[in-house]
Amino acid sequence: MVKALPRSPLAPESFADLPSIDGVRLATGATGVKYKGRDDLLLCVLDRGSSIAGVLTNSKTCSAPVDLCRANLQKGKVRAIVVNASNANAFTGKAGVRTVEATSAAACRIVGCDASEVYLASTGVIGEPLDPAPITSRLAGLNGAATGDAWMAAARAIMTTDTFPKLATATARLGGKTVTINGIAKGSGMIAPDMATMLCFVFTDAGLPRGPMQKMLADAADRSFNSITVDGDTSTSDTLLLCATGKSGSAPKGVRSIDDASLKSFRKALDSVLQDLAHQTVRDGEGASKFVAVSVTGAETDTAARRIGLAVANSPLVKTAIAGEDANWGRIVMAVGKSGEKADRDKLKIRIGGVLVASRGSVHPGYDEDELVPHMKGQHIDIAVDVGVGKGRATVWTCDLTHGYIDINGSYRS
Amino acid sequence: MVKALPRSPLAPESFADLPSIDGVRLATGATGVKYKGRDDLLLCVLDRGSSIAGVLTNSKTCSAPVDLCRANLQKGKVRAIVVNASNANAFTGKAGVRTVEATSAAACRIVGCDASEVYLASTGVIGEPLDPAPITSRLAGLNGAATGDAWMAAARAIMTTDTFPKLATATARLGGKTVTINGIAKGSGMIAPDMATMLCFVFTDAGLPRGPMQKMLADAADRSFNSITVDGDTSTSDTLLLCATGKSGSAPKGVRSIDDASLKSFRKALDSVLQDLAHQTVRDGEGASKFVAVSVTGAETDTAARRIGLAVANSPLVKTAIAGEDANWGRIVMAVGKSGEKADRDKLKIRIGGVLVASRGSVHPGYDEDELVPHMKGQHIDIAVDVGVGKGRATVWTCDLTHGYIDINGSYRS
Repeated sequence: MVKALPRSPLAPESFADLPSIDGVRLATGATGVKYKGRDDLLLCVLDRGSSIAGVLTNSKTCSAPVDLCRANLQKGKVRAIVVNASNANAFTGKAGVRTVEATSAAACRIVGCDASEVYLASTGVIGEPLDPAPITSRLAGLNGAATGDAWMAAARAIMTTDTFPKLATATARLGGKTVTINGIAKGSGMIAPDMATMLCFVFTDAGLPRGPMQKMLADAADRSFNSITVDGDTSTSDTLLLCATGKSGSAPKGVRSIDDASLKSFRKALDSVLQDLAHQTVRDGEGASKFVAVSVTGAETDTAARRIGLAVANSPLVKTAIAGEDANWGRIVMAVGKSGEKADRDKLKIRIGGVLVASRGSVHPGYDEDELVPHMKGQHIDIAVDVGVGKGRATVWTCDLTHGYIDINGSYRS
Repeated sequence: MVKALPRSPLAPESFADLPSIDGVRLATGATGVKYKGRDDLLLCVLDRGSSIAGVLTNSKTCSAPVDLCRANLQKGKVRAIVVNASNANAFTGKAGVRTVEATSAAACRIVGCDASEVYLASTGVIGEPLDPAPITSRLAGLNGAATGDAWMAAARAIMTTDTFPKLATATARLGGKTVTINGIAKGSGMIAPDMATMLCFVFTDAGLPRGPMQKMLADAADRSFNSITVDGDTSTSDTLLLCATGKSGSAPKGVRSIDDASLKSFRKALDSVLQDLAHQTVRDGEGASKFVAVSVTGAETDTAARRIGLAVANSPLVKTAIAGEDANWGRIVMAVGKSGEKADRDKLKIRIGGVLVASRGSVHPGYDEDELVPHMKGQHIDIAVDVGVGKGRATVWTCDLTHGYIDINGSYRS
């Protein structure tokens, strides 16, 4: 069956211990479809009155569960999330839609809610039919067993070739109360013939006003999951959901803009949870041996800065150079140039590990490559680029491109 | 110094034998700057009255020689092209501009022409100053030695880590005469810390009207060099030049559109030369073990089709699957989805090696993966995708992504 991969050398030394969140219960189970000896099914049950926001893949060939989530997000209510990690139910035609309908109907019946309050996510092989029976037959048992403290089990159940579970938590002040945000994610591991699907589920006991809740999530996603890349490929199934039970107190009144001061602490905590999970995803990137931060300043806009950062972070030439511990700034110049965003070649500045290597359109006078050797040999590489045209800034994160990536993705399915 | 790489397994069995072209003389020499025991300098001298068209890199951090070519192409006249393969003279600031000026001045003096009639191209290491002296001191000797038959020497002199020289030739009928088109190119080989610069120089004895000449070249480039990809990275130095001596007879009169019937034969021959050279470039892609053609039909426009094709051809997941001889069509679905171009998931059809593997939004009934094993084991992989929304079509070419790519690009410069 499925070979387990060795744990990423960039895995954290310990995992966050997530507290329970009032109004959220979790349970996991094993469908036996693909994996032996581990859970691959997660049911999250939320109390009545919970609201939801979501960011979904932009893929034009998205999966059937993503279609369901997109439709239900229009209403913004949630009572149940069902996640399976055996099969992505993507590119499965009408059979895929029937599986979504059957799973959703079973969850409604068991939890006692409307079809518009159920969300599904599937990750695993694509193009193969997903039989709903091994999922639906287990949901009643999971609902009975669900508790407020199964976070680690939940993070493990949604893994595919992730080499470690991904969890993060933070607290914030909102409406005079302390609220908690918990998140779990799975990321850029892959079992052929899957793709690097990213799934992330975030829960809070805060009450959140609906419009700002969606905007806050989209904004935080831009600075976290939309600012990471392993290989530039986009899954048919990427799903990020934020559920708010409101149990800590009702939503702050009269808040229309996400820039409202009352949301500041919550937004900071949400950023911290999503960035933590996004970084863990990169640290588990296929074959990753180094974690790379690319900071871009001086761009026309923040969006332009992010695109330049992603051009650098996605460049196979930059990524292979980092794998080779080579401070190859010429390839960074190339990647900035190919981004298509405005940059002033003759004002471009590049720092690696804090050392100024290029300025004013050429190598910095006195730059000594030997200075960078210790930084390049480390596990955390810092690249900073100033493109000299404006005030836009962004940071993106990636990993290096190694033989491990080819090994994982280039070996025939067996 | 520089290690020679083993010849690509996809190299052609023999090389085209290029005839002389009236009005074109070539000579090569060795600057000794980087390579020992081989020529790395090319001088092309063209008779008075020769015209030129060009397509240059879109990079925002383009090299000093590219700036010169872009400026001179405004006038459209050519007498000399100087190419060096030791150093890209890119990101070299004011020193780089001075090197361009000195080289251009020497060529003018020796050939006896105006500064606007000289074109330069440099490929090799970036960010290091290029001393003009080893080039300028050799130009007079090269001008004296230039002949009409040094095509193979020329193709070899512009190589960097190319593992074989790239030449192509064709004839066409134009204005009642038979005309010849010769082309040489260098491509996606790389010596750290260079990047995969593409240089291509095409010569013809045809007379060509200036406006249509530029449009014909841009159009042919879209179907050849702009339709290939090795790793999606774009060089600071990519340069494609077409020089027409007019020695076979003057330009056809009154031709304003490239769709004029009188140009049909010439355009077909130009396409053939550029596609041949583009394919050779892919066949010499770093670490390539398979040549891959991706044909896209049913797109909104031809441009959309090309973008979808490039999304497939650039996907590391598709390329590693091909390296692993895995007919992993799920990754093709993913790549189509991420292209951002309109596609109808439920009408999508995918053929590999002519076998229909997916249709109507799911795996094709009766598809048997075993049927594809011989095709996937071959050196030429055919992928055909119909996205089901319109009449746009395009073909792009790429190679697989193998351990060889990581070996070539991930080893520290030494």
